[in-house]
Amino acid sequence: MTEALNAGSVIGILGGGQLGRMLSVAAARLGYRCHIYDPATHIPAADVAAMVTNAAWDDETALARFAASVDVITFEFENIPTATLDFLEPLRPIRPGRRALAVSQDRLSEKAFLRDLGLQTAPFAPVDSLDALQHALGAIGAPAILKTRRMGYDGKGQVRLESPDDTAAAWQAMQDAPAILEGFVPFSHEVSVIAARGVTGEVAAFDPGENLHKSGILHETRVPARLSASQRTDAILMAAKILNALDYTGVLGVEIFVTPQALIVNEIAPRVHNSGHWTQNGCAVDQFEQHIRAVTGLPLGDGQRHSDVVMTNLIGDDLDQLPDLLRAPHAAVHLYGKPQARPGRKMGHVNRIIPASR
Amino acid sequence: MTEALNAGSVIGILGGGQLGRMLSVAAARLGYRCHIYDPATHIPAADVAAMVTNAAWDDETALARFAASVDVITFEFENIPTATLDFLEPLRPIRPGRRALAVSQDRLSEKAFLRDLGLQTAPFAPVDSLDALQHALGAIGAPAILKTRRMGYDGKGQVRLESPDDTAAAWQAMQDAPAILEGFVPFSHEVSVIAARGVTGEVAAFDPGENLHKSGILHETRVPARLSASQRTDAILMAAKILNALDYTGVLGVEIFVTPQALIVNEIAPRVHNSGHWTQNGCAVDQFEQHIRAVTGLPLGDGQRHSDVVMTNLIGDDLDQLPDLLRAPHAAVHLYGKPQARPGRKMGHVNRIIPASR
Repeated sequence: MTEALNAGSVIGILGGGQLGRMLSVAAARLGYRCHIYDPATHIPAADVAAMVTNAAWDDETALARFAASVDVITFEFENIPTATLDFLEPLRPIRPGRRALAVSQDRLSEKAFLRDLGLQTAPFAPVDSLDALQHALGAIGAPAILKTRRMGYDGKGQVRLESPDDTAAAWQAMQDAPAILEGFVPFSHEVSVIAARGVTGEVAAFDPGENLHKSGILHETRVPARLSASQRTDAILMAAKILNALDYTGVLGVEIFVTPQALIVNEIAPRVHNSGHWTQNGCAVDQFEQHIRAVTGLPLGDGQRHSDVVMTNLIGDDLDQLPDLLRAPHAAVHLYGKPQARPGRKMGHVNRIIPASR
Repeated sequence: MTEALNAGSVIGILGGGQLGRMLSVAAARLGYRCHIYDPATHIPAADVAAMVTNAAWDDETALARFAASVDVITFEFENIPTATLDFLEPLRPIRPGRRALAVSQDRLSEKAFLRDLGLQTAPFAPVDSLDALQHALGAIGAPAILKTRRMGYDGKGQVRLESPDDTAAAWQAMQDAPAILEGFVPFSHEVSVIAARGVTGEVAAFDPGENLHKSGILHETRVPARLSASQRTDAILMAAKILNALDYTGVLGVEIFVTPQALIVNEIAPRVHNSGHWTQNGCAVDQFEQHIRAVTGLPLGDGQRHSDVVMTNLIGDDLDQLPDLLRAPHAAVHLYGKPQARPGRKMGHVNRIIPASR
């Protein structure tokens, strides 16, 4: 496939959460239809998709039918079972490709990939035993953080070590899963770059946003981020380097720690990213549309920021603020249609536009 | 129903064209789901709706099932058969209500309503015979335009009379349908006001846009419109007057001719309106979301313009420009997913954002 998909083509999306939902809306805006595949029922994307398959990740009949109905496959989260991808890959193009997934599904592979690319990361060491953990902590120093290599997000599967006394409990918490110990980076703030790469290799990046976390979950992204002009350029070049090294197609999020000395890559996400939601109300073309353009072979669009934006996640009972948020000036509310507000569950977000003075 | 509909409630939309499509996306953004009712298959709204019913306007079984599945009913076009509305009205609230539809479905009722409200319109007279037409043309003067009272849009069902010699042919073109003769207004330009009224009576209006037509079809809307500060206020007050007089719930479009002496109402549309599409990229809350907020009982949102916008319709083979439009700076492309570009068919639109200087 070297040409763009025709209007009316079908994009298969693995995963039907809020990211799949917003991808589906963006695809429709470009004249495409979406087929969502998700084992869960009552998924946010189902409300705005042309087709939905509710089936298990290992249901090969359902997967084959899904693949036959779509022209290209993409995904909204990186932890799709390898066997599912193995089954789908010969049937339809998967974008971004397997390499990006393989790298980002494993924290150790990701760190090694970044280091090999000449980018700075936090100090890290693989940990597969209590012995190895003690060794690693000796080398990296406390405080440090022990993480499972796979399947962690939003602070899950992580234990902080304050001193060598914590090693036994920390290793036990891993339940024998392969892990990675990471040193702390004394950063002043975190920024993220949301960047896209098209099938022909063109790269486009949105302005970096500055992220504020609460309880390990993204709380707020502000654009523009506090960065010098050269830091801003460097951050975007880092994202471009990663995209090119992975021969990537689609949107990728790069979280970066800012220290006085350097920009240090925290992690990468091979998909649209929560810290890019501000683009919906700050740019003519948002991250979701940019991803759809990339995976369908359309030219990337103009992601220049026309307005400053503060994006705030609505998590759990933050929804109680809704009556005020709906009336707030310059506020664009985006809800995900999830049935219930559970603690820690992302229910929506608000983009507050800061209009330029005229 | 005095409180807002709960998240997850279902909005029934009569008509599944591009307006229904964009309403459905806006509803999802607020956590609602949409059920589209349309006799046609392959409708634009089906790609982004939770539920779709393809059935005739007089299929009472399908209508009853549709009504039972929704919490409120709205519509994307005003020419829904009266019998359909008669059937649905006792089952679920229809917003906006029957009065707005009755007034706007008939050009004569509409003109009379506006005149009774103290607003200026073009001179007009009912025509139900060749005699009446000759009489009316004598009173109004040539040139004038003869229109069917019902079902006309985008220049259809209209004949221009340049002199009394044209009366016989013009009346024949009406095929005995009740008609209205309207005098010409020597206007410098046309603007439209897109305004909303909530269930509690609150009113909000977007900045007036300036419309340019080609071959009787809207080609472009520019915001801001060329209006003095007092004209701008007057235009918005006219829209508010109409909304209140109709005890209206939802978004309404008012087309206004601007002359040096006065603002003259051309016509009203009891629905979201093509000339309001610019709001998608110029405001935090667009006309589609404002309509959904109104009909579900949510507070109206902030429709302040954060950026100037030029909206251009993509009609028929205008789609050939797509490769350039997708690359154009500050351009937000919105396609409707229609299968084929026919001459005169609205296939999409582009909003060009004009960023404020910083």
